[in-house]
Amino acid sequence: MILVKKALSIICKNTKKNLATENINTEKSLGRILAENIRSVVDNPPFNMSAMDGYAVHDNPSTGIYKVVDVTFAGKPTKKRLTKGKAIRVFTGSKLPKGTKAVIIQENIKKLEDKLIFNITKKIKLGNYIRKKGLDFKRNKIIITKSKEINSRDIALLIGANVKHVKVFKKPRITLLASGDELIVSNKKKAEGSIYASSLFMIESLINLSASKCISKKIVKDNKNIIKRELNKATKSDIIITTGGVSVGNKDLIRSSLLELGYEEKFWKIMMKPGKPLLFGVLNGTPVFSLPGNPVSSYVCFYIFVVPYLYKLFQMKKKLDIKNAKLKNNVNTSLHRESYVRGFYYDKKEITYVHALPNQDSSLLKTLSESNCLIKIPKSNKQKNKGSNVEILILPHLY
Amino acid sequence: MILVKKALSIICKNTKKNLATENINTEKSLGRILAENIRSVVDNPPFNMSAMDGYAVHDNPSTGIYKVVDVTFAGKPTKKRLTKGKAIRVFTGSKLPKGTKAVIIQENIKKLEDKLIFNITKKIKLGNYIRKKGLDFKRNKIIITKSKEINSRDIALLIGANVKHVKVFKKPRITLLASGDELIVSNKKKAEGSIYASSLFMIESLINLSASKCISKKIVKDNKNIIKRELNKATKSDIIITTGGVSVGNKDLIRSSLLELGYEEKFWKIMMKPGKPLLFGVLNGTPVFSLPGNPVSSYVCFYIFVVPYLYKLFQMKKKLDIKNAKLKNNVNTSLHRESYVRGFYYDKKEITYVHALPNQDSSLLKTLSESNCLIKIPKSNKQKNKGSNVEILILPHLY
Repeated sequence: MILVKKALSIICKNTKKNLATENINTEKSLGRILAENIRSVVDNPPFNMSAMDGYAVHDNPSTGIYKVVDVTFAGKPTKKRLTKGKAIRVFTGSKLPKGTKAVIIQENIKKLEDKLIFNITKKIKLGNYIRKKGLDFKRNKIIITKSKEINSRDIALLIGANVKHVKVFKKPRITLLASGDELIVSNKKKAEGSIYASSLFMIESLINLSASKCISKKIVKDNKNIIKRELNKATKSDIIITTGGVSVGNKDLIRSSLLELGYEEKFWKIMMKPGKPLLFGVLNGTPVFSLPGNPVSSYVCFYIFVVPYLYKLFQMKKKLDIKNAKLKNNVNTSLHRESYVRGFYYDKKEITYVHALPNQDSSLLKTLSESNCLIKIPKSNKQKNKGSNVEILILPHLY
Repeated sequence: MILVKKALSIICKNTKKNLATENINTEKSLGRILAENIRSVVDNPPFNMSAMDGYAVHDNPSTGIYKVVDVTFAGKPTKKRLTKGKAIRVFTGSKLPKGTKAVIIQENIKKLEDKLIFNITKKIKLGNYIRKKGLDFKRNKIIITKSKEINSRDIALLIGANVKHVKVFKKPRITLLASGDELIVSNKKKAEGSIYASSLFMIESLINLSASKCISKKIVKDNKNIIKRELNKATKSDIIITTGGVSVGNKDLIRSSLLELGYEEKFWKIMMKPGKPLLFGVLNGTPVFSLPGNPVSSYVCFYIFVVPYLYKLFQMKKKLDIKNAKLKNNVNTSLHRESYVRGFYYDKKEITYVHALPNQDSSLLKTLSESNCLIKIPKSNKQKNKGSNVEILILPHLY
């Protein structure tokens, strides 16, 4: 048995050095991970632009009176150049005429007669209401750095920078195998003693939420030949994830199957509750995460180990979202293992509180669904008391 | 001009009473919003189940010795009934034989000879290591309540409860119209004075992230006939969102077009920065959000107004994620308007700090991309000083 920290460090050392990349349309890049620094193709704004509706002027005549010589809308620029005593009507987003030194906002303008306007304030401030070319970003400068997960605002930035395609990491292709004679899918008639393979669709969702792709998911029977055949097929994936069959029972055949296939074991069993039988190694170059079969255990192991592994693969600096909270009730500890307890946290004034949910058996799906964080409880021979400070891991949206 | 709070209250009063629903496969329900309370179809566990590898027994003979009469794996139950002095080998997940009073874990068992085992502790605790039928949840009980957004753990729960289909709210169908002669899409040749329609793809992403569907997105020229035609077509959607053309310039034609089409105006202009010209009303029964054209303004208005509107439509209790933070730098305030300033927050020890990003011009895409929250700054005639407590709105993942 090794420490959680040690297990995580071993896992993160076994990331492939270079995950493949692909060029995709910027418009389709939401949620993908950049595989390069992105430079702008254009200046933004692409020209000196009016920030307000008003009048572009070149100077500040003592009379405050200008002659309006043209009008220019957003997208309809003028070719005229501004000179002394002249003004050109502009609107927010208008390309400013040559010779513009300031924009007078329309609130400060009185129309005298046709084509003649008066600047009420009689003042202009050079550069006022002008969005300078390149104010937002300049051509060929880095606007987003490698390994950022692209959000909706990044898409706006990329489109504004005329970046039509982006190089992103290919989604790691993951094969998911749920082992156990007792497992069935819900459209099958239920044999006595069988249970629904709830982990299968949960882990598939988690994979798809993690900029990765579940290319195959399957229930495999407790039969070494079948398991070995499926594991062999799965080595064409970038990552293999199995659930169940990694404990010490007679039907726990995942580890022995992997060993017979000659895989390189990195560790088996960790000082963690739930998740103790976690197994990790490499089969023909493909990393294999063998998660325990109980849905809570497989969830916690996915979140604590697979997610950081993927971050590492994408070369992200991102870490799991950990914060401090005050415990609202007493929690049992484990003497030898770090516990990850399903909890519900909330903020009240400046403080974050967390409530450990009542029954922590690792088979219970309902408390898993009701939680919004995992509470990290260090190993100890004493219970963790109400009011203690604890670390909580916030579960991301839809995870 | 009305207050942000007032605007929000008007908007939320204009949700359709009954959003349509549909039945979908549970396996495909990630991110959808439940339109009904969900009851379990089965008990879980479906039977008394062993929580560990070990031996199921009926009693506690003074010798501590049992005769092993059968073996039962997960998914392979036995028909035998346990009686005095008898034991049946069980594994985690095994359906327990009739007559089981406790499970002795294998760590506490010594094998004496073929079929004879000895309980080292000589004790049993009734019910030990038995997961009782229905411990997780009972048949026909509510397991998830209406209006929850389904996450990966909910999927596990639903599958475990044998809920094959769920009734969810149909995704509201949204038409998105970006108005402005200056707007172009990036594959077009760029005319002088034109800019890329960055908001268009940003808002589309935001819609798709919000359990909704962008059914049509279009750039419309500053021409009333075209605008009116497109608005008319868009009334077949559940919601219309426009960007740009809602200020007071000569080319701000959205409002006049809507008025000519006979729409019912609910408000125009709010005391908010950015976002002042926000317009909201109802056209032939379809709510219309007319957001300002600058990408930052349209983003902020979408997040502050459209997202809570959708929550209301889905009958969710969920609110925007607001927390308190300590300001790391001085921030300018507006005399008459509540400001929403792009910021970057981080936690250090128990405290959340937030840094207002330097340039807050509402055309700047780069600071929008760099921020991870919006800082709410109340209207004031004094600047907000470094060290002040402020409210921040956390931007959700991928928003």
